Order: sequence, then structure tokens, then C-alpha cells
Amino acid sequence: MISFYPGPSKIEPLVKDFMQDAMDSQLIEYNHRSPQFMEMMKSCVEVVKEKLNIPKNYTVLFASSATECWEISSQSFDANFVHIYNGAFGKKWASYNEQINKTVTHFSYSPQKRIGISKIKVNKAQKNIFCLTNCETSNTTKVHSKTIQKIRSRFPKSLIFVDATSAMSGVNINWLSADFWYASVQKCFGLPAGLSVMVCSPRLIKEMKQEDYHYNSLHSIYNNSLKLQTTHTPNILNIYLLKRVMENRPPISKVHDHLRKRGNRLIKELIRLGFTPLIGNSQLQSNTVIGVKCDPDELKQIKEEAVEKGILLGNGYGPWKHNSFRIANFPAHSDDDFEHLITFLKSFKKGDKS
Amino acid sequence: MISFYPGPSKIEPLVKDFMQDAMDSQLIEYNHRSPQFMEMMKSCVEVVKEKLNIPKNYTVLFASSATECWEISSQSFDANFVHIYNGAFGKKWASYNEQINKTVTHFSYSPQKRIGISKIKVNKAQKNIFCLTNCETSNTTKVHSKTIQKIRSRFPKSLIFVDATSAMSGVNINWLSADFWYASVQKCFGLPAGLSVMVCSPRLIKEMKQEDYHYNSLHSIYNNSLKLQTTHTPNILNIYLLKRVMENRPPISKVHDHLRKRGNRLIKELIRLGFTPLIGNSQLQSNTVIGVKCDPDELKQIKEEAVEKGILLGNGYGPWKHNSFRIANFPAHSDDDFEHLITFLKSFKKGDKS
Repeated sequence: MISFYPGPSKIEPLVKDFMQDAMDSQLIEYNHRSPQFMEMMKSCVEVVKEKLNIPKNYTVLFASSATECWEISSQSFDANFVHIYNGAFGKKWASYNEQINKTVTHFSYSPQKRIGISKIKVNKAQKNIFCLTNCETSNTTKVHSKTIQKIRSRFPKSLIFVDATSAMSGVNINWLSADFWYASVQKCFGLPAGLSVMVCSPRLIKEMKQEDYHYNSLHSIYNNSLKLQTTHTPNILNIYLLKRVMENRPPISKVHDHLRKRGNRLIKELIRLGFTPLIGNSQLQSNTVIGVKCDPDELKQIKEEAVEKGILLGNGYGPWKHNSFRIANFPAHSDDDFEHLITFLKSFKKGDKS
Repeated sequence: MISFYPGPSKIEPLVKDFMQDAMDSQLIEYNHRSPQFMEMMKSCVEVVKEKLNIPKNYTVLFASSATECWEISSQSFDANFVHIYNGAFGKKWASYNEQINKTVTHFSYSPQKRIGISKIKVNKAQKNIFCLTNCETSNTTKVHSKTIQKIRSRFPKSLIFVDATSAMSGVNINWLSADFWYASVQKCFGLPAGLSVMVCSPRLIKEMKQEDYHYNSLHSIYNNSLKLQTTHTPNILNIYLLKRVMENRPPISKVHDHLRKRGNRLIKELIRLGFTPLIGNSQLQSNTVIGVKCDPDELKQIKEEAVEKGILLGNGYGPWKHNSFRIANFPAHSDDDFEHLITFLKSFKKGDKS
């Protein structure tokens, strides 16, 4: 079965060997205060920075899930959080910040439109943090890197936080355009769930609360990382697998181009076959998760027939649950996986007409 | 190399095969909202309860580390936390609770003595929660199950929380004597780090705060678990490995007896060879982690020679860092591992004298 679910999704096939190496090398039996672990974490951070082209003065940190990154970012900053979103995950993040007693300003916009930056009005006298969702997995839109850069230019004094969950390591991110990027590893990293990656600007580190109240206060996590330590026993296996997977990845610019071309080809084929993409404007369409409209009767049929052909299509999400499906276009998927998918879609539509 | 480090420690050798099964079955590629994951988590909880003899009306929940369990338990209850400890981890837990603005009462006692229960005075008009460390990994003492029961009897209206980190699945716990037991899986469960297990009494569930502010509020975790759901994408691989490891384990009463006998034999051999256990009173000595006094010069030598023989001894901790070593006696260790260790200790002492 090839999983095109947008996370947890297909795992990099090499992970099977890497797991054996983890056991054989006994690296995962070493204490997290040991030189063996410290050296491994150091190499992992280095290769993540190298392959994803992360600026040298940015910091890479780990947590256990993207959801935990909501908690970490919320408790580590006092500010008005300006959430700009067009879908379920962006909205959930805003609600999360509200729940833990933060001041939150909501700017929601249509998934079919660009962010109207000129309409964003905030009280510049207060400290604002802008929160964006790079790829909104629920409705398969992206925020274009130029848009993030424009927000940066318009509000130069504000920090920008970006949920990069279905983007990091699949999209060539312009890191300098924001201060806090986070993602879980079960999306574009092609790994088992249970780890998240945070990429932090020097300004973020400077402006975070200087408090260690929580084990996952950013200040604690950062200060520990300077000594190659963690605030608790981390998911050592996943840090090891991350290192191995990234060592085997081409540079992000190549990965990005490859996924973009493959995504575009898929969309063209879908349209040619009579499907309608969920997102009409290709400038707003995520490269890594693609939504496809589908009427409810056909939806049940296509998902069932796909399973028979060894293909797991992702369910639609929220309002699109019963009238769309989603296709993950992640680095762990091979071009053969996509040929197999397109062949299936063709035969499905052919059967449909006959 | 056989790791006798008290966690991360030796991993159950079968885990290597189970990891391959996880990849081959593709279970870890399924979404955590899928029936496949839900069914697997259900079986995992069932087998944990069965093998550890956990009462049917107790609830098993997951988090990502024992440290996270400090956060979870602290934020989910309003009370005066009465911390009774004799070592570094018990004290750290108390400090953690203090940091996040809880009222904390400290009762510290000597590692060489029993808890003086009659000396524990609390304001019974306020809500008190007693916090104990079942096995204090830092100094290798245990709190006897009868002691926990006595505290229960003396303060029947109070909840009791127990850090069971180096005990759960190695010690036959009397679950009814406390309300919240937690442990990470890299100790007695013999698994890679990145998951923790919480065992909750019905009264705990009744008395927890009915709030969902944090993704790891106990109320959220519990309510999600009723629907076989999680508050975020969890460490699916580790939940799967936990299920497989527990399916292969004998009942806890057998495991407990086996470790107790093996620990006692080791201590006898150590004494016979001229070593001195860190804890003089065998009633206070943990069965799962054993500390051994050692003068600083000999310590360096024994650790180095052990490594040459493929044995990793655990470092001492805190005040005992430079004058002791620790030996984990976990279920993942085989009797052959212990024969190998004892043979080494004998040859070391022989070489010492010659």
C-alpha cells in the first residue's frame, strides 16, 4: 500500500535499514548525556542545516510534536499573537493561543485568495507576533514565500512564526523571512511520528522569555542545546533516523523543484481526466499536498478502488471531508508511486465512463 | 556492548524484529485517526494492563517522557504538593512543581532510612497530593510498597502520585495504593526513549481539573483516549513496540521475582568480592537499579576495563558521581548478561589483588 495520506504518510524506505543500524550500533541504548548521543545530535543538526540551507546563525531545536510547538511558542513569548489563517490548522493554532490566555487577533481569509496584507491593521504600539501557516494541510493551500517576505517588510519590528508542518524539507524555505519555523517529521521528512523540528532566528532567541518554568520553555531547550543537551530524554531513535534520512537527501533546492514539477504534472493530469483541484489558483496551491474535489458517491468508490490497487488516498478535512480527497506529494514518495497513482486515476475515470 | 546504564539502557533484542514488522506492516504510515491506529492503541493498552496486573477501572495513557508527566500532573491539579524524597529525581520533581507556582511542602529523608511517616505533618484542611519516587534512580533506593500503602491509610483523602520510572514493568506494583503512576519506556520496558506511560485511578480522573487549556492537560488526554484518540500525532512506532514487547513478557509477578532474585544474587557476589553496596539496608535497596561504592581511582579503572569486556556500567549520580557506579537490573537484560558481568567483576577483583 502506498500511502498518499498527508501525514503520517509514506515513510522513507531507507528507514527500515536505518532502524537496524540504530539497533546494531546500539546508539539508542546510550544515555542522552553521553558523548555518543551528543555527537550524534550535533551531526543531525549540522546535516539538517546543510541540506535545508538554514542560515548559520539560525538554531535548530527538537520537540516531540508540532502541537507541542504551539505550547512552546505560546508560553515562551508575551505578545499579541496576530493569526492570519484560511483553514482548520491555522485556526486551531489561534484558538490554542487564546486558550492559554494570550491576546489573539484573528485575520481569516479565503482559501481561494491571497492574504490581503494591506487590510492587516494592528496596534503598532504593542508587541505583535504574526502567525502564519506555510502549507495549510486541511485545504491544501500555501502561503507564497514572497507573501511572508512582504509581511516581514511591512512589520519589521514584529516576530513572525510559521507552522511549516507540511512544508519543511519539501519546500525551499526563505528562512530569513521569519523567526520561528516548526514542523513534525511525519510529513516531508518521511519519518515515523514523535519528533518535531524548530528553526529559530537569532532575534527569536534574543526576545524569548528568559524563564525555565516548563521543561519545554524555549529558553530551557535552547540553553540545553548549547551544551548539546536536552531538557529530558528525547526521542533518540527519531533524531538518529532524521540524521540518516537527511544525509541521503539532495539539497532542498533540488527537492523543491522536483516536488513542484511532480505536483504540477499531477494537477495537469487530474484536470485532463476531468477532476477539479480544490484550489483553483495555482499560485495558492501547495506543492506538497494537493486537494481534489469529488462528489460524495464517487469519493467512496475512488477510495475503495484505490485501496484495491494498493493506493491510500488522504481523506478530505473539515468542510471538505465528504467532497474531496487529498494527495501528499512528499520527498519519500517515488516517481514510480506517482506513475502508479496516475495510471490508477486514468483507469478509474475510464471505468467511470464505460 | 551490554549496557547496564539505568536508562536509556539495554533495549529488548526482539525490538529489532518488531521494528521491521512495523515497517513491513506499514502500521506506522497510517494516520493516528485511522481505525488501524485506534485498534493498535487499544490492544497496546489491553496488554499493558493484563501483563502489569493493572486494575480494570484504572486508565492507561501515554505521553512523550516522564518529564512531561511532571508538567501534566502539575498543571492538571490544584493542591498543596507534598513531596517526600531522598534523592535528586524526587527533589527535581518537587522543584518543578514549585517553579510552575504550586504550593509545595518538602519532606526529605536519608537514603539509608525508611520514610518516617509519623513525622509527616500536613494541614489536613487543605487539599494535599503526596508525591513519591518508587525507585530513586539517582541513589538506587526504593520505597517499599507497604510504605506507600501506609501513607495511603494515614491520608485517605489525599491523592498519591508516584514516579515509577525505574520500577514500572520491573516491579509488581500495588496499583490501588496510589492514584497516578508514571514511567518512561527506556527503563524497565526495554524500549527506545520517546514515550511514557501513565496509570490513573478512577479518583484521579474524577478529581483532575476539567480544563483543556493545554494539549497535554490530563483532561484532554483522558477524553481523547475514551475515543481511542490522542491530542496530537503520538509516537506511533513506540506504542506499537510497547504492545509487541508486552505481548512477549511474562506476567509482572514472575518478572518481579526474577529481577529480585537476580538483584539479590548480584549484591551477594558484590559483597563477597569486597564491594560495598551504596545502600546498606536491603529493605531499602531497589531491585532494578543497584549502586556500588567505589573509590575514585578504582572507579575509572573498573569502567574502562568493563568497556574492554563489552560492559557499560552506569555512572554514579550527583554526590555519588565520583565514588560509585550503578547497575541496571531490567527485564531486557538476560541472565547471561549478568553472568558475564559477575565474571568480569571477579576477574577485575582478582587482577586488583595480584
